[in-house]
Amino acid sequence: MIPNGIYGHYAGPVGVGAPIFFDTAFGSHFTDIDNNTYIDWMCAYGPMILGYGHPAVEKAAADQAARGNTVSLASPVLVELAEQLVDMVDGVDWALFGKNGADSTNLAVMVARAATGRSKVVKIDGGYHGTSGWMQEPDRPGVAAGERDQVISIAWNDAAALKQAIADHDVACFISSPYHHPVLADNEQPADGYWAEVETACRAAGVAIIVDDVRAGFRLDLAGSHAHYGFSPDLVCFGKALGNGHPIAALTGTDSMRQAAMDVFYTGTQFFSAVPMAAAVATLRELLVIGATDVMTDVGRRLSAGLVDLANAHGFDLVVSGSPAMPYYRIADPSLARREAFAQHSRWIKACVQGGAYLLSYHNNFVSVAHTDDDIATTLDIADRAFGSLRT
Amino acid sequence: MIPNGIYGHYAGPVGVGAPIFFDTAFGSHFTDIDNNTYIDWMCAYGPMILGYGHPAVEKAAADQAARGNTVSLASPVLVELAEQLVDMVDGVDWALFGKNGADSTNLAVMVARAATGRSKVVKIDGGYHGTSGWMQEPDRPGVAAGERDQVISIAWNDAAALKQAIADHDVACFISSPYHHPVLADNEQPADGYWAEVETACRAAGVAIIVDDVRAGFRLDLAGSHAHYGFSPDLVCFGKALGNGHPIAALTGTDSMRQAAMDVFYTGTQFFSAVPMAAAVATLRELLVIGATDVMTDVGRRLSAGLVDLANAHGFDLVVSGSPAMPYYRIADPSLARREAFAQHSRWIKACVQGGAYLLSYHNNFVSVAHTDDDIATTLDIADRAFGSLRT
Repeated sequence: MIPNGIYGHYAGPVGVGAPIFFDTAFGSHFTDIDNNTYIDWMCAYGPMILGYGHPAVEKAAADQAARGNTVSLASPVLVELAEQLVDMVDGVDWALFGKNGADSTNLAVMVARAATGRSKVVKIDGGYHGTSGWMQEPDRPGVAAGERDQVISIAWNDAAALKQAIADHDVACFISSPYHHPVLADNEQPADGYWAEVETACRAAGVAIIVDDVRAGFRLDLAGSHAHYGFSPDLVCFGKALGNGHPIAALTGTDSMRQAAMDVFYTGTQFFSAVPMAAAVATLRELLVIGATDVMTDVGRRLSAGLVDLANAHGFDLVVSGSPAMPYYRIADPSLARREAFAQHSRWIKACVQGGAYLLSYHNNFVSVAHTDDDIATTLDIADRAFGSLRT
Repeated sequence: MIPNGIYGHYAGPVGVGAPIFFDTAFGSHFTDIDNNTYIDWMCAYGPMILGYGHPAVEKAAADQAARGNTVSLASPVLVELAEQLVDMVDGVDWALFGKNGADSTNLAVMVARAATGRSKVVKIDGGYHGTSGWMQEPDRPGVAAGERDQVISIAWNDAAALKQAIADHDVACFISSPYHHPVLADNEQPADGYWAEVETACRAAGVAIIVDDVRAGFRLDLAGSHAHYGFSPDLVCFGKALGNGHPIAALTGTDSMRQAAMDVFYTGTQFFSAVPMAAAVATLRELLVIGATDVMTDVGRRLSAGLVDLANAHGFDLVVSGSPAMPYYRIADPSLARREAFAQHSRWIKACVQGGAYLLSYHNNFVSVAHTDDDIATTLDIADRAFGSLRT
């Protein structure tokens, strides 16, 4: 009934000994339909940030559902959410909402094009901003001739390449995640001075800076990941964690982009559904109250440090990259070819999953504020046995 | 805080004496934040089909919310929904899900391109399939040079133009709504034999037929609008009414498109949210149990017939177009220029809205199964006074 069965990013772990369907999810755990319970270090690939079934979020959602969800008019919660987001995100003056992260990245590029009157988009090699044609690699099935013509792809941390692209083309915008979190590769932080250099180059040429904070948003800094790195983008995209699992995304922007945001045509039937907006207001408030980034950073650091120590004890080298609340793990082994090293790493991940700690081999993992000391301790026990199993 | 304040399609009625924010919505009514209650003939622009806050749908949603919404795994309700949809929609063999109608139209075009190895898309002038760049008019702000290069636009009901386009270009697909429902113009049914001719031309050339049933889906026929008109598309897009207001969209397709659907890269973080899927299963079952299309067709016919009679009694000519459950209204007046005639029509709509019947002047309206005989009678009373007010 469904091509590929489980499709999209959920297809990745299928067939490698991982569970396929959840039955229930609560807090930091989910239980699959075979009644196995897992500590969930994927957090639904980001959305779950406060824990599954968070009482305050679910109450806000249920209260709004009793009043109405998608109605012929907007709900006042639209304004409440815009105010909340503009208040907390550094340097932005307005917000617009959609459903998918890609709604917000697509809108960001449209706004940047409208603001600059230019077409070209500079992105990062391996940077992911959704599955629209222009965002996909040109040779992917279904991507039309010419769909990528306006896109220039450069290496991460290469400010010189950005300057060259700006010199060579009429560039409307530079779109990038705040740090580089591709799949199947160590994640990379910005080099010292990288974002400052990007900012200077883009300002000088009137190129809009779009931060795709869909994945990292609220896990580095509640004021946006650009606040963590100390630079000032024109447009910032949010999604994933914004509604703690309720489907919503947002584009925020500065006053300099406001007229362009008013000029472009952007809408969707489901964009005005009020329940995810109410859930998002409750999520953001709760994140602020508990100082969520510090909590997650601490949990992520302790988990990663514990895993590295265990790896060492077993004679392995576990490389941790990315940000503390979104760790990417890789067992490095210079004695093995790249493919064999990844296979060994995947065997370790599989043993962790089968032991009850849900991690992925090829994608960064996610920490939530619902993860407890017990979750860390249990995960380390599981990981310990998993490292042990690699030697047998 | 929000560019344009109320944006997108919700901005249309703003500033013409219409309410802006809802407070509560139930059944066929909503109440605005100033405590005015309206009979809602827009149905959230389509999603509301069983009535706001429908008990069976909301119970299914709440039960699923208690188990989990967006989790690191899919829910079995994904399979249940695919089975339900494939069972009820004529001629389709599989389903994939997203959030927005545009997720499903974008995916449909990707699948058609992957299946055919061609790039060109034929669409209908004024046909609406979302706000992605390739779907927008080329001169809209933010639409890049070249984004429409692969799109050929032809007039509705012009099978000869379609044949010519196919002869002149490497056409991957023809995308169209099942009947023509543009804004600001009478809606148009397919001419006798039109869809059969389209089918023959497309089959002969290996061009995929995509029906965008996002707006009309389930209001003409529960087996899909193509079943109503008696033709066999390759791909059918659903959205809007699928979840009775819970954000979800679907692409369904035939076996001939299955491999292409497996080959394309399509995903989204929010695509696997289980609550809207549970709501959609409940919505579809309820629609089948009550034979919803017949109910809505009957309500729509009675409403439209009553309005036409009233118009006549007041000396006006109310033109009704579209399908019975999605009527487009226009007061025709050959004595006035087009703009003045529309202004007169808009004054009538405004008087209806201010009287408590929420209609739109420039867009088709929507009927739901929640609309009662009382709703029709009250709306006709309101419309009667509104026609009267036009003469004063």
